[in-house]
Amino acid sequence: MAFTIEFQPLGLRLRSENNLNALDAARQAGIDIMAVCGGEGTCGKCLIQILKSKSTHKPTIADQKHISPDRLKAGFRLACMTTLDSDSKLYVPATSILENQIMQTEGEEHNIDLHPAINQTQISLEKAHLKDLVSDFTRVKKALDKPGLKADLDILRKIPQILRKNAWCVNVITRGDQIIHTQEEKISAPLGLAVDVGSTKIACYLIDLNTGKTLTAKGTPNPQIAYGEDIMARLAFAMQSDNNAQTLNDLTISAINDTAESMCRRVNRFVEEIVDLCLVGNTAMHHFFLNLPTASLAVSPFIPAVTDPLYPPAKDLGLAAMPGAGVYAPPVKAGFIGSDHLAFLYAAQFCKDDRTRLGIDIGTNTEIALQAKGKIVSVSTASGPAFEGAHIAYGMRAAPGAIEHVCIDPNGQTEIDVIGSQEAIGICGSGILDAVAQLRQRGLINKRGRFLKEKEITKNDPQGNPAFFLSDGENAVSLSQQDIDQILLAKGAIRAGIDILMDYLAVEPAEIDEVVIAGAFGSYMLPEHAMGIGMLPTVPLSRIKIIGNAAGAGARMMLANIYARKEAERLARSIEYLELTLYPDFALYYANGIRA
Amino acid sequence: MAFTIEFQPLGLRLRSENNLNALDAARQAGIDIMAVCGGEGTCGKCLIQILKSKSTHKPTIADQKHISPDRLKAGFRLACMTTLDSDSKLYVPATSILENQIMQTEGEEHNIDLHPAINQTQISLEKAHLKDLVSDFTRVKKALDKPGLKADLDILRKIPQILRKNAWCVNVITRGDQIIHTQEEKISAPLGLAVDVGSTKIACYLIDLNTGKTLTAKGTPNPQIAYGEDIMARLAFAMQSDNNAQTLNDLTISAINDTAESMCRRVNRFVEEIVDLCLVGNTAMHHFFLNLPTASLAVSPFIPAVTDPLYPPAKDLGLAAMPGAGVYAPPVKAGFIGSDHLAFLYAAQFCKDDRTRLGIDIGTNTEIALQAKGKIVSVSTASGPAFEGAHIAYGMRAAPGAIEHVCIDPNGQTEIDVIGSQEAIGICGSGILDAVAQLRQRGLINKRGRFLKEKEITKNDPQGNPAFFLSDGENAVSLSQQDIDQILLAKGAIRAGIDILMDYLAVEPAEIDEVVIAGAFGSYMLPEHAMGIGMLPTVPLSRIKIIGNAAGAGARMMLANIYARKEAERLARSIEYLELTLYPDFALYYANGIRA
Repeated sequence: MAFTIEFQPLGLRLRSENNLNALDAARQAGIDIMAVCGGEGTCGKCLIQILKSKSTHKPTIADQKHISPDRLKAGFRLACMTTLDSDSKLYVPATSILENQIMQTEGEEHNIDLHPAINQTQISLEKAHLKDLVSDFTRVKKALDKPGLKADLDILRKIPQILRKNAWCVNVITRGDQIIHTQEEKISAPLGLAVDVGSTKIACYLIDLNTGKTLTAKGTPNPQIAYGEDIMARLAFAMQSDNNAQTLNDLTISAINDTAESMCRRVNRFVEEIVDLCLVGNTAMHHFFLNLPTASLAVSPFIPAVTDPLYPPAKDLGLAAMPGAGVYAPPVKAGFIGSDHLAFLYAAQFCKDDRTRLGIDIGTNTEIALQAKGKIVSVSTASGPAFEGAHIAYGMRAAPGAIEHVCIDPNGQTEIDVIGSQEAIGICGSGILDAVAQLRQRGLINKRGRFLKEKEITKNDPQGNPAFFLSDGENAVSLSQQDIDQILLAKGAIRAGIDILMDYLAVEPAEIDEVVIAGAFGSYMLPEHAMGIGMLPTVPLSRIKIIGNAAGAGARMMLANIYARKEAERLARSIEYLELTLYPDFALYYANGIRA
Repeated sequence: MAFTIEFQPLGLRLRSENNLNALDAARQAGIDIMAVCGGEGTCGKCLIQILKSKSTHKPTIADQKHISPDRLKAGFRLACMTTLDSDSKLYVPATSILENQIMQTEGEEHNIDLHPAINQTQISLEKAHLKDLVSDFTRVKKALDKPGLKADLDILRKIPQILRKNAWCVNVITRGDQIIHTQEEKISAPLGLAVDVGSTKIACYLIDLNTGKTLTAKGTPNPQIAYGEDIMARLAFAMQSDNNAQTLNDLTISAINDTAESMCRRVNRFVEEIVDLCLVGNTAMHHFFLNLPTASLAVSPFIPAVTDPLYPPAKDLGLAAMPGAGVYAPPVKAGFIGSDHLAFLYAAQFCKDDRTRLGIDIGTNTEIALQAKGKIVSVSTASGPAFEGAHIAYGMRAAPGAIEHVCIDPNGQTEIDVIGSQEAIGICGSGILDAVAQLRQRGLINKRGRFLKEKEITKNDPQGNPAFFLSDGENAVSLSQQDIDQILLAKGAIRAGIDILMDYLAVEPAEIDEVVIAGAFGSYMLPEHAMGIGMLPTVPLSRIKIIGNAAGAGARMMLANIYARKEAERLARSIEYLELTLYPDFALYYANGIRA
C-alpha cells in the first residue's frame, strides 16, 4: 500500500509504494542530508525527528550511540537507520542539511597568458560555378589557407547549407587542424570553462577566451557527498554496482552543467558558446567525471586506469557546451595525486625557479610537494576530514552558524567568531585548529592533547564526556577529548608527510624559502596556529603564502593556453611520487607528527 | 474507417486507417515495386491491376498515356497514380516487381598486397604492486612498447576490468597509434568489409585481414531504388525533406548491415569481428551513405560537400561492426566522378605504366578516363538507364525472363537467349545492344536508327506503334522506334565522352593500347556489338579487356592495404576532371555520337 512521507520544515512530500530508508527518502524528495559515513550509521550526522508515524521506531544501537536519551524520547533518530513503511511526518533539523558552504572559487589571479586551443575565423567565399567545381569543404580550406584541415562528418554535413543560406559566408571555429564548429555569425567571444572538481565542492570559472579574463565564477557543493563525505566511502559506493558508479558520474556532470548554465545566464551568454573546457580534480574525482572505473583506486595498491592527459569531446562526457567543444583533462600522477595537485603546483609556478618550496593542499587527502635540489617530490597523506568538521562532535563545514575563529585569553576566557554572525551551531576547521592551538598555547592540554585535569576547564557534554565549551545555552558547542585526538591525528598525518619529504631530500626547516598553502581550509586557518600545533615546521611567518583555490587557478591557466598544458605535462612528468607507507620508519614519523 | 488492401499473387495484406497511395501501400506491405521516375507517373513501370475495390478508379492522364485501353478496362493502373480508400484487392504483375537481379560481385581478383590498417597483439602484463604503481593504460603501452599510443575513453574504461578478470592478459587491436578494441581473447582473424555502393546494387566483400582472401561476397539490390531508379530522381526525393534524405541513408546502411550479417553467418563469424571497412560509390551514393547533404549535387554546378578521403568511425555511420571499427571512404573527384571511379582506375592499375588506356564504367552515368601522355583525364556522361532497361517498352534488368542476347541471321530470323531459360518477359541491356547492333549490321535500320520501311520487318505493338518483335505469343517482346532512339542517345553520350577525351589529349583510336570496361552491363555486352553501333571507337578486339566489378576489387585492395589508400589518393589528385558540357562543340560531338 502506498503511503506518504512529509518532510518539515521544508514541506516536501513523497509517495512510496515500498518500505524506504529515511535517508534515501529525503534524497528522493530533493533534500541533501549529510551522511559523512555514506549511510553506515557511524557518523551520526543524518539526524531527523519523527513527528508522526504509525510504526514504532525502536532506537537502534547506532541511534543510542549518537543520540541522547532525551532526544531519543523526543523521536530523534538517524535517518540512515530508519525504515519508513507507513504515513510519516519527519522533521529535518537544519544541522542535518548540506547548506551552501562558503565556496571559495577565487584563488590567486595570475595574469593569464593567452594562447587558446581554439581559433575563430569569419570567411567569405566565391560562389561555386561550373569553372570552379571544388567541393564546399575544399573551398573553406582554401579560404583559411589550411589545406591540411580536417572536420568530422557532422561539421561537413552542415557547411553546404550554411554557405548557401548565408551568401557563401561562414564562421569557422578550429582546434588545431580540426574544424569543431561552423555557424553563420561570429561568436562575440568564445567561452572557456575551467572546473576544479573537489571532493566537497565543484568550483567553476567562465573565461572569455579572447581576453583570458574570468567573466564569473561559481562554486557548488559536490553532490557526490550524498553518497559519502570522503573519497573512500564514495569509491566503496561505486564498487557496489555499475549503476552506483554511473550515479556518481551523472551527479558530477549535472552539477557542472547546472553551474555553467547559471553562470552563462548571469553574464548573458549561452552554454553553447563554451568551446573549450579544462577539468581538474583528485584522481578519484578525475575518474568519476571521466566515468573511468574506480575499483582499483579503492584498494591497495591504488592503481589509476589512466594517468595520461586526455582530450575527450565534451559531448562524450555529457557536458553542456558547443557540440564540437573539447575537454582537456590534465594528467594525474598516482592514485592519490590528481590533476588538482598538478594544477596547484603549476599555478604556484613550481619548477620555474630553484628555490626550496613546500606546497600543501589541505583536504581530506592532503597532497604535499617539496621542491628542492632540482627535484619535485610529492606525497599524499590521508589527513581525514577532521578539518572539514567530520568526526568532530559539533564539527561542520564552513557554513552559517559555524565557529570559524576561537581566541582563548590567558585567563581561559573564550571569544568566538561565528559565520553569519548568528548563534553558533557547530565549529568548522579553522575554528577547531584555533581552539586546539589556543588550548595548547594556554597550557590547558598537554603535548599528547590531553586535558589537564588540574585546570578544571571541562564540563560534561550531553553524552556525558568531559568537554571544553566554546558557547553556552541549549545548543552549546564544545570540543571533547576525542575531538582533539581527531585533530591531532589529522595534523599528524600532514606533518609526517612534510617530515618524510624533508628527510628524503635532506632539507632543514630553515632552508625552506616558501611554504605555499592552498585549499579552502588553508585559506581560513591561521598559519601561526598551524605551526603552534606542529602541523607545519617552524618557519618565519613571512615565508608562508596562502593562495586559496590554486587548482582552479591552474585549470584556468591551462584552459587559456595550450603551451601551459604542455608545460604542466612536463611538470607532471618531472614530479616524483613517493609512497609514504613504504618509507622507512613511516610509523615513527606519524607518531611524532601527532604530538601537539 | 480502417480498410484492408490485399496484394496478389503474393497474398500480402495491409490495414490502413487513411487514404493511401497504392505505390506506398505496396512498399509498406514489403513489395518493392519499380518506380524509375520516383512516383511521378512518367515512367509507367509501376503497373498494378485492381481486382476488387469499392471505389471507381478513373484512369488518369498518366494511366491513359502508359496503359492500352484494353488493359485500362481490365483494371490496370499505375500504382503511383492510384489512391486507395476502401477494401481493395490488387494484382501486382511480376514485371512491376524488382526481382533478384543478377548480382555481379566478382570483379577481377587481384593478388591483394596485405598491409591492413589494424594490428592485433595479445599481451601479458606484470600485476601492479606497491613498487610498480603505473596506471593500467601505461602498463599496456609499455608491454606494446608504444609510448605514444592513444585510446578513447570507452577503451580506457574497459582495460582495468579485463586485466583483473583475465590474469593481467589482454588482446589489443590497434589502428595507427590508436587502440580501437580490447578483449580477453584473440580474434581468430580480424575481418574487413569492402563495399561498392552502386545505384542499382550494393556489392559486399568479406575479407580475412590476416590473408587478404575474400571469404565470401554478396550483392543486394540498392533499396534506394524504391525512391527513384536513377540518381537524379533520388536526389530530388532527398531534396524534398530532411526526413527523405535520412530515409535513403537508413536504407543504405541497413542493406549493408543485413548483407554483412548474412555473409558472416555464412562463414561462421560475427559482424563484431569486422574491424575495418572500405566503402566506395559514385558521389551521390558516397554522400548518401555518409549522410552528407546532397542538395547541391542535384543542381548545376553539382558541387560535392566534400571530396577528401574520410575516416569516420563505423558506429557514427550506424554500421554493424566492432565498436571501434573505422571506415575508409576514399576521395571522390567531382559531382559525377565518385570513389567507385577511383577504385576502378586503381584496380585497373591506371597510373602504373605509360600505356594509352581508356577506362569505361558503363551505368546510368558512365565515367570514362583516358590515360595518355602522362595524364589521366576523366569525364562523366549522363548515358541514362536505357542499358539497364529503363525507358524501353519491354526493358528490364538482367533478371530471369530477360532476353540477354539476340542474334539476327542474314535472313532476318531472330534467335534469343533468355536468362533462366524461361519464357521471355522483357529485354535487358546486353540484349538491347545486340538487337540494335544486329539490326544495323543486317541493314534493317539506317545510320539514324530508323527502321527501313521497305524491309517490312515491323509489326504493330499493343500500343499501335511499329516495332521489331523478338518473341511471339501473348507476352511478345518487341523493340519500337522509340526504344532504338533511347539506345542511340545512351551510346551517343558515351561515345561523345570518349571522343572529347581523345580530342583533348590528341589521341587517335589506333594509339589506344587498351580499353578497360567495367560494370555489370559491360560484363554481359559483346564488345564487337558495342563497336558495331559505334559506342566504342574501333580497336582490335584483343585490346578490349572486360574486368567486371572493378570498383569492388579496388575497394578490397584499399581495405587490405593502407599504402594502397595513399597510392589511390595520389591517383585521385593526379586525375584531371573535364566538364563535358563546357567543351567546345560538345553538342556536335553528341550529335555525331548518336549515329549508328
